[in-house]
Amino acid sequence: MPATSLRDMRFLIHDVFDFEAHYATLNSAQTVDRELIDTILDEAARFTDGEIEPLNRSGDIEGCRWDAGVVTTPGGFKQAYEEYVAGGWASLCGSVEYGGQGLPESLSLFLEELMSSANMAWTMYPSLSRGVINALESHGSEEQKQNFLTKLLSGEWTGTMCLTESHAGSDVGLARTRAEPLADGAYAITGTKIFISAGDHDLAENIVHLVLARVPESPDGTRGISMFVVPKINLDGSANAVSCGSIEEKMGIHGNATCVLHFDAARGYLVGAANEGMRYMFTMMNAARLVVGLQGICLSQAALKRSIEYANERLQMRSLTGPKAPDQPADPIIVHPDVRRLLLTQRAIAEGGRALVYFTGQIADRLTAGVQQDDSAQETEAMLEFLTPIVKGALTEFSFESVNHAVQVFGGHGFVRETGIEQYVRDARITMIYEGTTQIQGLDLLGRKVLLEQGAGMLVFLKQVNELIAALKKSGGQDLAEFATQLEVITKQWGDLALDCAGRAQANPEEVGAAGVDFLLYSGYVALAFCWGRIALVAQQQLSASSAAAAKGAAGSAEAEADQNYLAGKLATARFFFARILPRTAAHKAAIESGAASLMDVSAEELSSI
Amino acid sequence: MPATSLRDMRFLIHDVFDFEAHYATLNSAQTVDRELIDTILDEAARFTDGEIEPLNRSGDIEGCRWDAGVVTTPGGFKQAYEEYVAGGWASLCGSVEYGGQGLPESLSLFLEELMSSANMAWTMYPSLSRGVINALESHGSEEQKQNFLTKLLSGEWTGTMCLTESHAGSDVGLARTRAEPLADGAYAITGTKIFISAGDHDLAENIVHLVLARVPESPDGTRGISMFVVPKINLDGSANAVSCGSIEEKMGIHGNATCVLHFDAARGYLVGAANEGMRYMFTMMNAARLVVGLQGICLSQAALKRSIEYANERLQMRSLTGPKAPDQPADPIIVHPDVRRLLLTQRAIAEGGRALVYFTGQIADRLTAGVQQDDSAQETEAMLEFLTPIVKGALTEFSFESVNHAVQVFGGHGFVRETGIEQYVRDARITMIYEGTTQIQGLDLLGRKVLLEQGAGMLVFLKQVNELIAALKKSGGQDLAEFATQLEVITKQWGDLALDCAGRAQANPEEVGAAGVDFLLYSGYVALAFCWGRIALVAQQQLSASSAAAAKGAAGSAEAEADQNYLAGKLATARFFFARILPRTAAHKAAIESGAASLMDVSAEELSSI
Repeated sequence: MPATSLRDMRFLIHDVFDFEAHYATLNSAQTVDRELIDTILDEAARFTDGEIEPLNRSGDIEGCRWDAGVVTTPGGFKQAYEEYVAGGWASLCGSVEYGGQGLPESLSLFLEELMSSANMAWTMYPSLSRGVINALESHGSEEQKQNFLTKLLSGEWTGTMCLTESHAGSDVGLARTRAEPLADGAYAITGTKIFISAGDHDLAENIVHLVLARVPESPDGTRGISMFVVPKINLDGSANAVSCGSIEEKMGIHGNATCVLHFDAARGYLVGAANEGMRYMFTMMNAARLVVGLQGICLSQAALKRSIEYANERLQMRSLTGPKAPDQPADPIIVHPDVRRLLLTQRAIAEGGRALVYFTGQIADRLTAGVQQDDSAQETEAMLEFLTPIVKGALTEFSFESVNHAVQVFGGHGFVRETGIEQYVRDARITMIYEGTTQIQGLDLLGRKVLLEQGAGMLVFLKQVNELIAALKKSGGQDLAEFATQLEVITKQWGDLALDCAGRAQANPEEVGAAGVDFLLYSGYVALAFCWGRIALVAQQQLSASSAAAAKGAAGSAEAEADQNYLAGKLATARFFFARILPRTAAHKAAIESGAASLMDVSAEELSSI
Repeated sequence: MPATSLRDMRFLIHDVFDFEAHYATLNSAQTVDRELIDTILDEAARFTDGEIEPLNRSGDIEGCRWDAGVVTTPGGFKQAYEEYVAGGWASLCGSVEYGGQGLPESLSLFLEELMSSANMAWTMYPSLSRGVINALESHGSEEQKQNFLTKLLSGEWTGTMCLTESHAGSDVGLARTRAEPLADGAYAITGTKIFISAGDHDLAENIVHLVLARVPESPDGTRGISMFVVPKINLDGSANAVSCGSIEEKMGIHGNATCVLHFDAARGYLVGAANEGMRYMFTMMNAARLVVGLQGICLSQAALKRSIEYANERLQMRSLTGPKAPDQPADPIIVHPDVRRLLLTQRAIAEGGRALVYFTGQIADRLTAGVQQDDSAQETEAMLEFLTPIVKGALTEFSFESVNHAVQVFGGHGFVRETGIEQYVRDARITMIYEGTTQIQGLDLLGRKVLLEQGAGMLVFLKQVNELIAALKKSGGQDLAEFATQLEVITKQWGDLALDCAGRAQANPEEVGAAGVDFLLYSGYVALAFCWGRIALVAQQQLSASSAAAAKGAAGSAEAEADQNYLAGKLATARFFFARILPRTAAHKAAIESGAASLMDVSAEELSSI
């Protein structure tokens, strides 16, 4: 079964966000019209449904193996990667000069979505390459591009990001890995990195590690971090001094090798300038954070599809208003209100979250490719930076809720491994941790994007929300007008909360940490409300047009009915979101307003005395 | 490391709920004073820390094996069970006539807590026996008691509950297992039961299954269900026709065998009267539901202990208000506000939830043992029935949040299996499903206990809340008075919501299903608020006494300081709960008030069209 919904992807891509028109505004080499988008989606789905979705459960069960430094991926992973390379998927969005197809970055998000919905653990192997590609395109020398970028874009090699050390997780500035200059301009890299996803494997002939390390006499902390590119196999074909010491046994993503990597005076090449590594890392990290937010949505969507199917098949108890399937021994559980609450919550998160990722992907496109028309790059950048922690932090938290609802729909059958549902929970759990925990996203959003940058990105986003509010009001639909009113109230409150936090943070910096995650989640609900408003607006228009056509006798086909069901389902999910999910903001508002005292007016000893 | 906190158990048992005085009011054979309680706790902790906690991770890794119908438990499980039996733990609370020690039931909750905190999967083997013991004590014939109860109380045999069939989960009434009468008064039981925890194993020489089945010509649905006791080995020593067809691979509780059991005309004995099986099943189910609520709390507590330890050791980043450990490369993460939010949330849930289980356990004692003084058994029963779905449904949901926070405190180190933290998440996930899902608890609470029984139990509980409010106000403490005010507001709202639901349910029964889970969680927060109010009242009194003593120069020892830290930590957690957790009720209130429309005004086709 396809793990995601091409229908929903197309509805958002074409009807809600009009990517064809969007692509026409970009400074890209290539014209990307609706037909090309659809062809790419269809071909990608053929690949993901056929080649990697069938390896999702087997990969989880089998896991990766480590034997005397050699990592073997689960059965079928290597062949699937060969298909991926043969299909040209690795090069979809890279620079044409280095072998890429030069397509806009958002197309790689759609590809990523199809792949991660089908098999997140497998997808991380090619996906990690994107970060290295982005870093080299932005900061690499011409020689580095020729040596590494071409191979990454062809897919012959894959890439990794090596940040974490055992004592340096969220606090990258504690990293101790050293880089000693060699006579020929290269560096000898020495240190141990942990938690390196796709850090070693048998899919590609070489692996390009981006490693954060310190050159001699660099300052302490993050200001003394430099970025190096360190291949597993040297350019002359000899083995570099990079070894995989072990792989982690983990809660989930068993098909992806999470490696301890030892660099023993490994040959590496400085990327850009020394001590600028953190800045470069954030270039790729921001793109990676969007991908992690998307991963959550993918798992949420894949589990949703299974839940909907199961809720229609599983017969348990009668509806509270009398039998709905009187010829069966019991009704399908989709008749029960709380099963619907679970399913609608999953839909609200998966489909609203997908929309938020696409919306953010468009902004990222404008910034990466540049736009032809008059446009403030500064505003675009501010909005992207503002939305990134929301996509990463809030969407992964919401998605974890969503996949757990899928287990609940399946009941006991969800807890056993056979149905494959509990795997989504185990796989999803990492998304709230890697590439910056939810806590880090909260600090980034409130501390940096809102307070330090005085809400620049938030204000740009609010302009868009206000345009939507006006459009919803003008639409004439009663539901839509109600959504507009709720959006007005909630965004007003949101701004007030930001100002309130700013005021308190001046007196006490702990207020930022105390409010960060609640402000992040509050913002996540606002962003989803914006997306559901946009979705509802389009769905309502199309449904009216469809009903008008039906009234003239033009419709009535099975296909037209399926379309109407789809659009009515979208509107119903929007109503559900505004009625039952958005009010959760009240709890986060109260938590934010309670301030830091309830967290900080207790000593570590008292807090630990249990 | 001990997985739970004896200190906190004692504080609640002696100081908050005064179990010694409580036991003195019961019609029990034996006097249970403070000293006896402490001895039992100490001995039990010695057993759990020494024998079963060390098997928690190894049991998870090794799991159970099934080979040609024979189930083998993980290494060490059998020996630990032998120690358990040798220690007399199996008989702690059974009838003296059948070999039990006749102690009040709540003592088995304390034992259960120590065991489940140390190793939930192992504990389920002896724990499942309790249900069979309760059912036989209440409904078994003298012969059945002699034949089975004595062996269960000695621990020589263990027990199971066989309800679920593959098509009959929450809907037990769909069960098809048949019971044909035999000439000698026994029955031949035929059918297949699934998801039978501890259904087969190598710990004991025999297993007593309580099986729900249908006698010939019984009515359809739950009214035609009878209860049978079916031993694995017949009383004459021959093998009964009970076989384990397979065991499930599961997300968690790997150390416990979840079995498919085939009954092929197996010899069974009718318990009580025919067609009364559901009623009997609820006798044991209600006790089992308290235990499941407690399991959630146990995992929450065990994970909390590890989190607190880790948060004090792990050095990452500096406090927002400047270095707190300037001689270290970074501060321990317990200085960061959001880490504290996670830890305090864990404490609020684990410690507040423990108090709720103890409070409910006292009520259950009064009902099971009977009380000497004038007391309305009807009121006691109503309150117990009202609190049971809250303990089962809300505490397991809260606990799942809590164990996930523990993973978050550990970051990437929480996702790898080595630290053992992610196991708590995998083990905890089942508690929201078995013995009645959260959805079933919501329907039971709102539909049956509040609406059908017109809130009888809720009113009794509210009397206790009002007494607490008065005591908090009288205490003179400013925090306590504030808690009282919040409790007044929240319980007023709670009653209004119940009335509101009752009104709407008359017009549309779907309103019950639509509000059930949100009402359940709302009620859970109210129940925790009640517990934190009681805890805070006692902590404040003791802290004042301790400060007064210190002022007189009487204290100052390390022990006195530890006590003061403990009490101050309790008060801080109470403040945190009222400031940041209780306001979540606002979101549930809004969801309840939004009614059934957003769930039911969408067809199954529209809802499924994704």
